[in-house]
Amino acid sequence: MAGNIFGTLFRLTTFGESHGKAIGGIIDGCPPGYSLDFDKIQEDLNRRKPGQSAIVTQRKEPDTVKFLSGIFEDKTTGTPIAFVIENANQKSKDYSHIKDIYRPSHADYTYAEKYGIRDYRGGGRSSARETASRVVAGAIAKQILREIQIHSYVSAVGQLEINKPYQDLDFSLTETNIVRCPDPELADKMIDEIKRVRKEGDTIGGVVSCVIKNVPAGLGEPVFDKLHAELGKAMLSINAVKGFEYGSGFEGAKMRGSEHNDIFNEDGTTKTNFSGGVQGGISNGMDIYFKVAFKPVATIMQSQETINSEGKKVEMQGKGRHDPCVVPRAVPIVEAMVALVLIDFWLLNKMYN
Amino acid sequence: MAGNIFGTLFRLTTFGESHGKAIGGIIDGCPPGYSLDFDKIQEDLNRRKPGQSAIVTQRKEPDTVKFLSGIFEDKTTGTPIAFVIENANQKSKDYSHIKDIYRPSHADYTYAEKYGIRDYRGGGRSSARETASRVVAGAIAKQILREIQIHSYVSAVGQLEINKPYQDLDFSLTETNIVRCPDPELADKMIDEIKRVRKEGDTIGGVVSCVIKNVPAGLGEPVFDKLHAELGKAMLSINAVKGFEYGSGFEGAKMRGSEHNDIFNEDGTTKTNFSGGVQGGISNGMDIYFKVAFKPVATIMQSQETINSEGKKVEMQGKGRHDPCVVPRAVPIVEAMVALVLIDFWLLNKMYN
Amino acid sequence: MAGNIFGTLFRLTTFGESHGKAIGGIIDGCPPGYSLDFDKIQEDLNRRKPGQSAIVTQRKEPDTVKFLSGIFEDKTTGTPIAFVIENANQKSKDYSHIKDIYRPSHADYTYAEKYGIRDYRGGGRSSARETASRVVAGAIAKQILREIQIHSYVSAVGQLEINKPYQDLDFSLTETNIVRCPDPELADKMIDEIKRVRKEGDTIGGVVSCVIKNVPAGLGEPVFDKLHAELGKAMLSINAVKGFEYGSGFEGAKMRGSEHNDIFNEDGTTKTNFSGGVQGGISNGMDIYFKVAFKPVATIMQSQETINSEGKKVEMQGKGRHDPCVVPRAVPIVEAMVALVLIDFWLLNKMYN
Amino acid sequence: MAGNIFGTLFRLTTFGESHGKAIGGIIDGCPPGYSLDFDKIQEDLNRRKPGQSAIVTQRKEPDTVKFLSGIFEDKTTGTPIAFVIENANQKSKDYSHIKDIYRPSHADYTYAEKYGIRDYRGGGRSSARETASRVVAGAIAKQILREIQIHSYVSAVGQLEINKPYQDLDFSLTETNIVRCPDPELADKMIDEIKRVRKEGDTIGGVVSCVIKNVPAGLGEPVFDKLHAELGKAMLSINAVKGFEYGSGFEGAKMRGSEHNDIFNEDGTTKTNFSGGVQGGISNGMDIYFKVAFKPVATIMQSQETINSEGKKVEMQGKGRHDPCVVPRAVPIVEAMVALVLIDFWLLNKMYN
Repeated sequence: MAGNIFGTLFRLTTFGESHGKAIGGIIDGCPPGYSLDFDKIQEDLNRRKPGQSAIVTQRKEPDTVKFLSGIFEDKTTGTPIAFVIENANQKSKDYSHIKDIYRPSHADYTYAEKYGIRDYRGGGRSSARETASRVVAGAIAKQILREIQIHSYVSAVGQLEINKPYQDLDFSLTETNIVRCPDPELADKMIDEIKRVRKEGDTIGGVVSCVIKNVPAGLGEPVFDKLHAELGKAMLSINAVKGFEYGSGFEGAKMRGSEHNDIFNEDGTTKTNFSGGVQGGISNGMDIYFKVAFKPVATIMQSQETINSEGKKVEMQGKGRHDPCVVPRAVPIVEAMVALVLIDFWLLNKMYN
Repeated sequence: MAGNIFGTLFRLTTFGESHGKAIGGIIDGCPPGYSLDFDKIQEDLNRRKPGQSAIVTQRKEPDTVKFLSGIFEDKTTGTPIAFVIENANQKSKDYSHIKDIYRPSHADYTYAEKYGIRDYRGGGRSSARETASRVVAGAIAKQILREIQIHSYVSAVGQLEINKPYQDLDFSLTETNIVRCPDPELADKMIDEIKRVRKEGDTIGGVVSCVIKNVPAGLGEPVFDKLHAELGKAMLSINAVKGFEYGSGFEGAKMRGSEHNDIFNEDGTTKTNFSGGVQGGISNGMDIYFKVAFKPVATIMQSQETINSEGKKVEMQGKGRHDPCVVPRAVPIVEAMVALVLIDFWLLNKMYN
Repeated sequence: MAGNIFGTLFRLTTFGESHGKAIGGIIDGCPPGYSLDFDKIQEDLNRRKPGQSAIVTQRKEPDTVKFLSGIFEDKTTGTPIAFVIENANQKSKDYSHIKDIYRPSHADYTYAEKYGIRDYRGGGRSSARETASRVVAGAIAKQILREIQIHSYVSAVGQLEINKPYQDLDFSLTETNIVRCPDPELADKMIDEIKRVRKEGDTIGGVVSCVIKNVPAGLGEPVFDKLHAELGKAMLSINAVKGFEYGSGFEGAKMRGSEHNDIFNEDGTTKTNFSGGVQGGISNGMDIYFKVAFKPVATIMQSQETINSEGKKVEMQGKGRHDPCVVPRAVPIVEAMVALVLIDFWLLNKMYN
Repeated sequence: MAGNIFGTLFRLTTFGESHGKAIGGIIDGCPPGYSLDFDKIQEDLNRRKPGQSAIVTQRKEPDTVKFLSGIFEDKTTGTPIAFVIENANQKSKDYSHIKDIYRPSHADYTYAEKYGIRDYRGGGRSSARETASRVVAGAIAKQILREIQIHSYVSAVGQLEINKPYQDLDFSLTETNIVRCPDPELADKMIDEIKRVRKEGDTIGGVVSCVIKNVPAGLGEPVFDKLHAELGKAMLSINAVKGFEYGSGFEGAKMRGSEHNDIFNEDGTTKTNFSGGVQGGISNGMDIYFKVAFKPVATIMQSQETINSEGKKVEMQGKGRHDPCVVPRAVPIVEAMVALVLIDFWLLNKMYN
């Protein structure tokens, strides 16, 4: 209700501020009897963590996850799985300069309006650091949904975007470069662009695309909880996301029905897939694919005018180590949220069997 | 859980198939003591109903809503408000030709895969007829959220789209034409385009835009239930929707932080509004605006190849009276869903006072 | 949230006031493909309905249920099942005498305090008439939970109570007498007692007991949503209930561990069953049994002093046709609520398979 | 859904096994801006903790709570409050003797049936150790609900029970003796009885009573989520509870309406209070009072026959340090659960203002 819980059957509650003692979460409803590969969980965390490459924030956070419950002799027991990631950066002095300042396009002002109080250190609860907890839960979900492949990748940085259909991409290349774009040539350009932007003390937006393969038909609930509606909500809940489209997306709005309709093959597959793997809110077994737009990071290394909590104008200068572009680190977050959406529907669908 | 419930505090459950006895719903959690204007509720239903103009389906449904409970001497009592809209079209013979057929880009196949059984008449539960119930509930929510203005309108039909910023539009013109576009000249072109498409037995997609004014700061919950994430889910739950973007949207992904950041005025408003009225998932008091992409209607009046429930190829020919373009009738649905999202957060926000 | 929804996977929302147009409900999450026996549903309604015998209220309500959706060719489709029971008694004039009066031990005062407005006719939403909707939903749940037998019966009326263990009772006799007590001799005494009480213009309390057989082991969730905790909540949600005990109950509080412990047989059954079929909140396959205490009906045919909405003393005289004892009609309600609790856990348990 | 979450607006999720690394929880929805008294929280934990007196288990657990988030400069911020209590007893060797054994009247068998796997050390998740997390959350809720007084006390141990009405008790005496009975003479007898039972290697049941004063009128939701129904569920969710009654309770089932009806005074209070402070599921401002029956602890220090996981008979002998009677330590747990129920309804009731 207060917004920190995701899912219904596989239910994740996250906690923690960026500069508090720790972040973490509890998964309630993880099915019992699954052996967990803890290295794989840490691997996903490492793909999200700060300091991993030259084009992301140079802050250092080991982001080591520690499990407190719900696992016995390396297997899930069906009881709540609690986990904690300690914050390396707990000293609050770094943030005294923004204590009373509302940074532009951050959540400082809205948190103050809503709660009347806020942990101003590093954005507190509104920091994208929270998403590390999602990555842990998503990594567990992925290990249960063994058959399903989730391919998430950077498809645009600023004006640079992949122009090929996803079928022409080799997803095994995504993790071979630091920007996580499966088109190696474009990847190089993107990396250059991000470096240029950073040098200017600026930031830049981008797009993460995702292709999900091998989803069984029948997942998703009709009417309000359509599969793509929950995917959309999941993506829009990630920090900095401004848009979501699946299948034909906004281009589909320009099309005619006679070209957009996906004609069936005799086995129930379709010749085209403008539907994006979902019809009437329920998966049809075809690839699910979508795009997620991320705005440029709000913290820039340039001087900006803003206001303080008393409504007075102040000049502020970005400090610290921040991401010039959020999409490379967003790739595992998108994957995690996909896994959380799918496992919930997958568990729910057992009701029908 | 099974997808037919929307909201948490103001909770709508809808029921009904397009060719069953009736559709309708129950609102649980409507605050007590509000006088309802029943004419206004019916007005919104009329904006959604079939047969209202030359560019929508010519099917006739009076769509008259009848309230069964929760209202005493024209006021809400705080108990569940049940309402029913009888179906004029209950004869199932019209649909015998699609009984065993999976229509392309409809939900026939996925319902059959999920449930093993389906009411095939007119799409049954997957029919957009269900949205009439949302319009009723949304119309009630709007009457409670008196201060907030929700302006929803058609901003594109196929390739024809409004190119001005929304601030240059006069929303009082939206309902003056049958396509519901506040730009009268473009409206004429859109109407012509829809007529042309229909003549060809085809359909076409479009975009509905929405601007919400006078939302108090503080609505929305951080992390998973961000205000824009719930709006996105609400929109994506409407039949035929393929994409959602708010504020700077997909364009924002191409921008630099230095241009995208919304600089504050001393009163907490911002000079620009790329954020779209939401920061960190919480409303900041600025206009909330977003776009919703609708695909072309799947039922076309052309012959199409498809399969039946035994996986055999069959030829099918669209019959009946269908919409050549869904966006004019989608306008009140978008408004209703906005109202349902906002009233839930508005009620929830009382917890903080 | 506002209290009119029960269950999570098989979710019932009820609506309606006793003297409004209708009462009814929606079941969201009924599994698809079940053939329904509508006569059996009506039979359960008839066991609850007014006017069925000489010892219950002589009000006349046919209580005929009409289904509006979710059923196609007599089978459940997995979509919401909406149903309506029209109220025969819609004339409000009968109740003008209590318009401004707070009747003792009714919900008039508390509804007025909570909502500031109430439908005063016949108790409005607080009337036990609402439970007819539960009986409909429970009757459907029972048809899905075919293997499980729910035996509910009157075990006490005032001081008259069954003193045998339930194993010595023949449940096939429960419905052979109008008080629904499986001990025919005691039943006669109970009937006499109720008649005597009614003649005196008074009412009397009683106890409904319930034995559930053939529940598979594994139902119920540990910690907060224990099987017996949900059963307890379900029973306490029925009008006039003051207490719930299961297994050894309040007597168990007087016992020693050495006598109370249920020693296992080799097949996992237990020699005794003080646990009442539930251990750690999860069913163990043994009989589940419990007792529910009902207070005497508040409406008596005697003159009583009370207050009106202005806090002035007034004399009131019970009018109309009311139950002298609620337990005979409560028997099918208890059964229905049991079925609603069990089906939810039964569906949820599929998650573990 | 999986049973480890309590509440809707003030939502507690707990985690942890008795011999895992830690237990703890997350509160989502705690209102912002409240200064917390951490000593008071620890005090309640101390009232629950093992080893506190001669009549409880002599196990040593410091039960020190550590907060990880949601609190800034000693005030709640409205974000999730995570807390952890480390387990002192993590060595699992003590429990190897029960690894494959299903102890009588414990949850070993049912957990095995449900999950197919269990952490057998000390009962794992089914251990009452979990309730320490409830005490932490309840202690926070109590600090927010400042006006309301919750008086919980031992009213019976075995056959020894308080026979006076609660109005004749002096609740300031409850914490002056180790059994937590406000009648000092009876307290002495209870303590003797518990010591005698322990000497015999046996255990004994008891009753905890609770009186809640100063609850505002209007709390509780009608129909399914009645105030007393949620209190009942909350109590029945505590380990070892077998029954719940409020107001007149099971005695009320023997009464006549003419004696049971609570006649109003002109100020809306009532002359008697058989209703127990709740009418129609909603608080009326009078004292809420109820009783909770606890069975004798299942672990006894006597030899018992039981079965192992292969269904073979085995002899087992209780080992370790266990409670001879659970009620003295249950007193703060009952209080905590009351606070959790009340704060949820208190927050929800703000919706109506």
